[in-house]
Amino acid sequence: MRKLINNPENLAIELIDGFCLTNKKKVKRIAPHVCARKDAPIAGKVGIVIGGGAGHEPLFLEYIGLGMADASVHGQVFTAPTPDKVLDGIKAADSGNGVILLYNNYAGDVMNFDMGQDFARLEGIKVETVLINDEISAFPVEEAEERRGTTADHMVIHIAGAAAEAGLPFDELKVLIERAVFNCRSLGVSTSECTLPETGLATFELPEGRMEFGMGIHGEAGVEQVDLMSADETAERLIDEIVKDLPFQPGDEVVALINGYGATTRMEMFIVMRHIHKYLEIKGIDVYDTELGEFITAQEMGGISVTLMKLDPELKKYYDAPADSPGYVRN
Amino acid sequence: MRKLINNPENLAIELIDGFCLTNKKKVKRIAPHVCARKDAPIAGKVGIVIGGGAGHEPLFLEYIGLGMADASVHGQVFTAPTPDKVLDGIKAADSGNGVILLYNNYAGDVMNFDMGQDFARLEGIKVETVLINDEISAFPVEEAEERRGTTADHMVIHIAGAAAEAGLPFDELKVLIERAVFNCRSLGVSTSECTLPETGLATFELPEGRMEFGMGIHGEAGVEQVDLMSADETAERLIDEIVKDLPFQPGDEVVALINGYGATTRMEMFIVMRHIHKYLEIKGIDVYDTELGEFITAQEMGGISVTLMKLDPELKKYYDAPADSPGYVRN
Repeated sequence: MRKLINNPENLAIELIDGFCLTNKKKVKRIAPHVCARKDAPIAGKVGIVIGGGAGHEPLFLEYIGLGMADASVHGQVFTAPTPDKVLDGIKAADSGNGVILLYNNYAGDVMNFDMGQDFARLEGIKVETVLINDEISAFPVEEAEERRGTTADHMVIHIAGAAAEAGLPFDELKVLIERAVFNCRSLGVSTSECTLPETGLATFELPEGRMEFGMGIHGEAGVEQVDLMSADETAERLIDEIVKDLPFQPGDEVVALINGYGATTRMEMFIVMRHIHKYLEIKGIDVYDTELGEFITAQEMGGISVTLMKLDPELKKYYDAPADSPGYVRN
Repeated sequence: MRKLINNPENLAIELIDGFCLTNKKKVKRIAPHVCARKDAPIAGKVGIVIGGGAGHEPLFLEYIGLGMADASVHGQVFTAPTPDKVLDGIKAADSGNGVILLYNNYAGDVMNFDMGQDFARLEGIKVETVLINDEISAFPVEEAEERRGTTADHMVIHIAGAAAEAGLPFDELKVLIERAVFNCRSLGVSTSECTLPETGLATFELPEGRMEFGMGIHGEAGVEQVDLMSADETAERLIDEIVKDLPFQPGDEVVALINGYGATTRMEMFIVMRHIHKYLEIKGIDVYDTELGEFITAQEMGGISVTLMKLDPELKKYYDAPADSPGYVRN
């Protein structure tokens, strides 16, 4: 174990303690595992609630604020939040205009968020769910509803939050968020293991000099293990798979995003992104904007994931709206 | 080797290529290793030029923009920029009001930046230098001028940039930056090695379950290797050393910063920051603001560094001014 922690049983609570102290001007604590933007609930606005297991910071914890979500609810590391926490989050976000739950498509999360949604509906709160499922490798496009959510998260959360902020009515907002999710496709590659902080054990083994495509953010098995490729080869392989999945077409305008899983340097991310730009230009796909950083991590796993989001005028308008959250700022 | 790169000889150039593509709306390329904010040089403003070896991103490359530096100049990975690049950076930043060079105190950087400064002076440009030397472990306080620069960097750059933006005259600006540097004290601890991307070799060895205080960002030897401590114990050890160095006094108002060196999770940083807040409160030191993230990295080295910056009314005013750079945003 090489991690700076205290009692492994208190990881999530202590990390949320630290998050709230670090961002005390911007966020408030609703319950031990539930945080909200300071000004939530906001009158006249549909609430957005996000969440999932801890250990993927900045996701989801840090994506609450202006033009982002209203509340985030968390479980232990890599573990879904319980339904009572989801209910706390919904109540913190609801100003009487209803709440949309927005989270990644993992079985444990779906089960717990669905129960929290049911509890809230019993209390008379309007709640609907949009699942994020942008990861293309685990299931073919015909079974897209089975796919996992990954690095589209913060962009989808931003579009949802910005549109809610602009006063979009509940039903239109839900359709918009569903389109934002549909327009995002992601694929990643891992270059080194991550360790579970509770146990100090690696979640999988990856020999030095090898890389694995399609690995999940909890160490879920990928689809192919190969010898370490160059940055340019990796960029082409990821873009080829992503482009053919939607499919993205020449003339499409996209946001190109590269995410570091944990131990990956920004140096590597910039080098891969350099070739993504060149390669998309060859394909006739127009990069409207680029995002680069650690948006969703898998502890100290090495590797990257790439997301393309196809824009249309409405998505672009909300994407370009301001965001001000601890984990994501857009001016 | 586990890094996504191409030809190791082209690391710095390709990473700067990727940086400029990623931030094409905000930055421009002056020369292969020199970038500037898009609107540089800015009339009526003292220019700020920063730089050093590549491989520490976001430092220095990404700290150019509003309320930050005007130009950044880079060498190869962990290698100082050559004097001709420094001269290019100075010219890109100078609007006739002179330029202040601001970088970390390492012998190679000092030699090359000094020569670049001489070249610029020969061309009639007013140039002065402020060295950043916030790392307390390598030399005692009596030999502070020998100390290395580390994680105070982006805060000092921001105060310099914001004050320059506000029109502070050259000589007053230099005194202000010197005070900002003096008021910052930093100490770090490493928990795992980093590898040089050119060779794939680790720069040092650190057995699992051990940690080393005072290690440099290029793998320079630290001052003490111990068994892995808890997050809370680590926080107290770092704060004790930092507080007694200035010394910080009860009633002082500080910015508390925690920096991840590369592989460290935000989870760990939040857990350590949680206790820093509690421990500083016990000491009567008031945390005005908190910063948490990867500001200066040493490739994929594990571990953290902590910086305290003592504020006064003038420093606070410029610290609170807006910053908008690819690597640091302050609203």
